Amino acid sequence: MTANQKLYEGKAKIIYTTDDPEILLADFKDDATAFNAQKRGTIQGKGSINCTISSKLFQQLAIHGIKNHFLNSPAPNQMLVRAVKIVPLEVVVRNIAAGSLCQQTGLQLGTILENPLVEFYYKDDNLGDPLLTRDRLRLLKLATEEQVESIINLALQINNFLQDFWKKCGITLVDFKLEFGVDSQQQLLLADEISPDTCRLWDMAESDPNQRVMDKDRFRRDLGNVENAYQAVLQRVLEVLES
Amino acid sequence: MTANQKLYEGKAKIIYTTDDPEILLADFKDDATAFNAQKRGTIQGKGSINCTISSKLFQQLAIHGIKNHFLNSPAPNQMLVRAVKIVPLEVVVRNIAAGSLCQQTGLQLGTILENPLVEFYYKDDNLGDPLLTRDRLRLLKLATEEQVESIINLALQINNFLQDFWKKCGITLVDFKLEFGVDSQQQLLLADEISPDTCRLWDMAESDPNQRVMDKDRFRRDLGNVENAYQAVLQRVLEVLES
Ligand SMILES: Nc1ncnc2c1ncn2[C@@H]1O[C@H](COP(=O)(O)OP(=O)(O)O)[C@@H](O)[C@H]1O
Ligand SMILES: Nc1ncnc2c1ncn2[C@@H]1O[C@H](COP(=O)(O)OP(=O)(O)O)[C@@H](O)[C@H]1O
Ligand SMILES: [Mg+2]
Ligand SMILES: [Mg+2]
Repeated sequence: MTANQKLYEGKAKIIYTTDDPEILLADFKDDATAFNAQKRGTIQGKGSINCTISSKLFQQLAIHGIKNHFLNSPAPNQMLVRAVKIVPLEVVVRNIAAGSLCQQTGLQLGTILENPLVEFYYKDDNLGDPLLTRDRLRLLKLATEEQVESIINLALQINNFLQDFWKKCGITLVDFKLEFGVDSQQQLLLADEISPDTCRLWDMAESDPNQRVMDKDRFRRDLGNVENAYQAVLQRVLEVLES
Repeated sequence: MTANQKLYEGKAKIIYTTDDPEILLADFKDDATAFNAQKRGTIQGKGSINCTISSKLFQQLAIHGIKNHFLNSPAPNQMLVRAVKIVPLEVVVRNIAAGSLCQQTGLQLGTILENPLVEFYYKDDNLGDPLLTRDRLRLLKLATEEQVESIINLALQINNFLQDFWKKCGITLVDFKLEFGVDSQQQLLLADEISPDTCRLWDMAESDPNQRVMDKDRFRRDLGNVENAYQAVLQRVLEVLES
């Protein structure tokens, strides 16, 4: 299976067609962006690290019954995936208050939420990925009611699995973003990636609020040691899977 | 009933205590602010106009069974009201897409909504009055579930009444903001004001998207003739009530 035409290039990945119309190749880049691409940079090795972490997590999720787009990884920074039509929603699950939730509610960074919060954002760079209420989601017809219900259930199941997995890595799962898509058989699949770009991950061994950050917030907030943090996350994932 | 101490001063009104602890005096100012008070100005006569329109609408709403804080209006720019503890929510009802709904969803200005949208914003100037999902509302415990249900029902009833009333004035009710509060007997009351500061009102006789605007958007968007528009709205309200 070789890459053919470039289908589209996003901020973190280039998607290529393959000889099979049902299969796409995702090429993970080292490019890093934040704040709706107003901040740009490079994180050396990120493409391979994120692709490898994502591949491992998608494989584990499939074992646990969560259908997803992952097929295999022909190279450290490449992933063959089932082609889907992406539902234009960023599905965010939050266990601990951080980021825009704090800014928009006044909740203190680190507040543990009694129940995980499943939130929908409109995946539209021009609009700045705005938060959606259920009524706005309905109004914009971005997904059917049935899809929304399925997505919420899947997001909570994925959260249960991931909280557990990251805990084994000595990492607290603060929040993360998922994307879902519909394949040619109208099946709803988890797609895109699960990586330090899309999760907030805090080292359980560190209490310092800056030291503990092992995710893209190091880049967003200029905390330094970005590459090291990504590398450390990969290392822990591989160790847990080997044990 | 005379004004005693200044209790608090907001962007549009000063609230005074009176000899009766259950009663407050609202003094409507000519001050105009927009974009979370980043833009400031004066609209000559606005205090009296908004107080008079609000008083008339509150009286009509009471007749139609909507309990509200209005008691009487001792002067054109003054309103005696039942003292309430304001629920820190801006309750917005939308019939037609405008303002932040357009900016955040890409819906075109003027899109007629199939069903009115009842939205909640966190009344907090420091946070910039952010949109709240039901889950965030629950998380922040800004109101009980029962209060939220009551508020939605009341907002829709008020929308029915107001759409009808403004139509008689030759005005399309695009959207509006309400505030609710709880009085000393734990009764939920409609409070604050209903005026061209808090409603988007379009002249039904005008098709030009700028000409038709009869509300604070004239000030927000520097459309000119702000005083005339406010005055015209008052005139129409009085005519409809006299007829
Ligand atoms: N299985 C898939 N099929 C089709 N498109 C996908 C799949 N998985 C992810 N995508 C999409 O690939 C695009 C490129 O990814 P990325 O660079 O992360 O984009 P973005 O700049 O939107 O974050 C995104 O639009 C993403 O939704
Ligand atoms: N019946 C009432 N009892 C107590 N407070 C009220 C009542 N009606 C309105 N208020 C409050 O009076 C304050 C002043 O009004 P305003 O100048 O419009 O304030 P803001 O700057 O918050 O818009 C607001 O906090 C409003 O919620
Ligand atoms: Mg992406
Ligand atoms: Mg006000």
